[in-house]
Amino acid sequence: MINEQVLNLNRNGSAIRAMFEEGARMAKEFGKENVYDYSLGNPSVEPPEEVKTAMLDVLNEESPNAVHGYMNNAGYEDVRGAIAEHLNKTYGTAFSARNILMTVGAAGGLNVIFKVLLNPGDEVLTFAPFFGEYRNYVNNFFGKLVTVPTDPETFQPVAENLAAAITPKTKALIINNPNNPTGVVYPEETIRAIAEVLEAKQKEFGTAIYLIADEPYRELVYDGAEVPYLTKYYRNTIVGYSYSKSLSLPGERIGYLVMPDELTDADEIIPGASASNRVLGFVNAPSLIQRTIKRCLDAKVDVEIYNRNRELLYSKLTEFGYTCVKPQGAFYLFVKAPGGDDKAFVEAAKKYHLLLVAGTGFGGPGYLRIAYCVDYDMIVRSLHAFESLAKDFGLR
Amino acid sequence: MINEQVLNLNRNGSAIRAMFEEGARMAKEFGKENVYDYSLGNPSVEPPEEVKTAMLDVLNEESPNAVHGYMNNAGYEDVRGAIAEHLNKTYGTAFSARNILMTVGAAGGLNVIFKVLLNPGDEVLTFAPFFGEYRNYVNNFFGKLVTVPTDPETFQPVAENLAAAITPKTKALIINNPNNPTGVVYPEETIRAIAEVLEAKQKEFGTAIYLIADEPYRELVYDGAEVPYLTKYYRNTIVGYSYSKSLSLPGERIGYLVMPDELTDADEIIPGASASNRVLGFVNAPSLIQRTIKRCLDAKVDVEIYNRNRELLYSKLTEFGYTCVKPQGAFYLFVKAPGGDDKAFVEAAKKYHLLLVAGTGFGGPGYLRIAYCVDYDMIVRSLHAFESLAKDFGLR
Repeated sequence: MINEQVLNLNRNGSAIRAMFEEGARMAKEFGKENVYDYSLGNPSVEPPEEVKTAMLDVLNEESPNAVHGYMNNAGYEDVRGAIAEHLNKTYGTAFSARNILMTVGAAGGLNVIFKVLLNPGDEVLTFAPFFGEYRNYVNNFFGKLVTVPTDPETFQPVAENLAAAITPKTKALIINNPNNPTGVVYPEETIRAIAEVLEAKQKEFGTAIYLIADEPYRELVYDGAEVPYLTKYYRNTIVGYSYSKSLSLPGERIGYLVMPDELTDADEIIPGASASNRVLGFVNAPSLIQRTIKRCLDAKVDVEIYNRNRELLYSKLTEFGYTCVKPQGAFYLFVKAPGGDDKAFVEAAKKYHLLLVAGTGFGGPGYLRIAYCVDYDMIVRSLHAFESLAKDFGLR
Repeated sequence: MINEQVLNLNRNGSAIRAMFEEGARMAKEFGKENVYDYSLGNPSVEPPEEVKTAMLDVLNEESPNAVHGYMNNAGYEDVRGAIAEHLNKTYGTAFSARNILMTVGAAGGLNVIFKVLLNPGDEVLTFAPFFGEYRNYVNNFFGKLVTVPTDPETFQPVAENLAAAITPKTKALIINNPNNPTGVVYPEETIRAIAEVLEAKQKEFGTAIYLIADEPYRELVYDGAEVPYLTKYYRNTIVGYSYSKSLSLPGERIGYLVMPDELTDADEIIPGASASNRVLGFVNAPSLIQRTIKRCLDAKVDVEIYNRNRELLYSKLTEFGYTCVKPQGAFYLFVKAPGGDDKAFVEAAKKYHLLLVAGTGFGGPGYLRIAYCVDYDMIVRSLHAFESLAKDFGLR
């Protein structure tokens, strides 16, 4: 008998695999241009030119054994120092290399920090709807993920709901800002309210409750939205960052954790994260891409391309009668499923070669996630499908 | 309270960190050229030129979103297919892309396969001396590592010891061939004997016992030694490979798992490994380096450079009176600690600015690990230190 969690993953993963295979089958039968795949959060915008230039420069200018060899498990000291300085310049923080741990993407970073923080049975809170992988990450360490409902009209966190969910076993709250799957950005007032609840509960229970900020979408914001930098609002904040979306490098697996000196038990957490990076099998974040990042800290993908997709899809879907909070960040729309049954709607959409993801997997049943990190032209081609479905479901 | 295992890692890790810091301090005080650091298994030979060429070609010829984007969690289909074919050509096996999972180095691959196989309390066997990280990897999944003593004269596995250690809770045996820390290569007759014991015990207990071959040192062999390909000797074999040493790319974190169709529960293990690669936070092996590997499957570092180091160090140390099995693989010598106390000898060696690692951490107390993946000239400069220590400990 293999691992029980993995057997469950095989069972549950099969729906997405089936969708993937169905998409491939459809593309074969109807032509790739007639299938509208909105299921994957894989960046469609090209990495900025600076990335390639930096990579070539590293390969041509630096010593091969240094570029491709082992370094400290936390990452190259100079890269970590440069990132700390960049954060300080951008957000007015005061980090040094010691506070930065280079990770195998945000997913790697979150696994590292959960390994460090969680003992079996510890609880981790998150606001629903949420990125479904959080449950798997917490399960890896035999923790328990507890979801906290948001305001159903805005998907914004509700302080009272958070307060009610915290127990003496609460080790952390993980928030994803901008949010996958809703695209909502939590503004400063929301963050202040969250920090206040956490502070009060730490006092009430005499515990440390860590706020984990998962921020792969930080740079993907629209309409001038601002994403507060959380270490400035709450002492026990740990930030998980990724370059997957800001530089369109998801396959390269590069990101970092920020662990401020002010954390409760910082002197155990910081070396513990480095050791965990090692024993979990990451060992270190990939080396060439670490060295590359140092040379293009100011680079960023062209967010306007995503914004154009967002505007078109949002305006057309609402015109067709769909209901949706207008997202201010990331590259997702979280749309109310006409008829109320998200899985049924996902099935119905396939008739029009439209691939969507049911909200249920994100703790948001009754909703659909539409990943608009796709070609603009595909959106244009797909509009008739959304319109036909709207009519089929009697939206107008 | 942070995670208990991590607190222990912090305690135990401090010895190596202390050594590292002492090395840095010594280099500052006495000059880098007067410190002889044999502590780290970080390849000293440069990556073959083909690697850089392939990397530049990928960057210049392939589409950036394809090179740096997400792919299947198992890795690029074409890369996995090319590796399968390469294995088939080299070892006469019959693998296809389905049997290959691209991993974040061998360390990532081992964590993936342990996640898949182990339920809490399951036992994993390994022959001592062994790579100390195995214990941490097994601990990650609340398994139990059980060590099996080898022949003290040759460090070769002993079939009777293996048979005695297997229980109904034994889920796997992990072997490291060529071996870290001993440098010993297990020949075909040893492998046949191991396979026979495993087959018999599977029948006796009605269980599946997986043989995990950890093979980062497969290409580093000397004196014409041959490393048997284990899937040919035992049906339930899973191979973990890494390019860290064969291409001197340890920082890039690239390797793969081979999971043959013949495995008991292959249809759960193969998709389970892919899902585990995802949920453990690896998501996928770094993408650019995957695409690079496909273009240089036949490349290999210049092993003769390591061989020259091995010959010099082995001949001089035995001349000075040290006792050591002559290694046929990897880049380590595992030397009997004069006086019998490995930790005491490691301390004494520091007086001569010689940094060694105590065998205790490898389940080999009374021995010293010497990593000779260093500059030849450093070995030459360090010989007087080994000689003085031999005299201090009355070796002759």
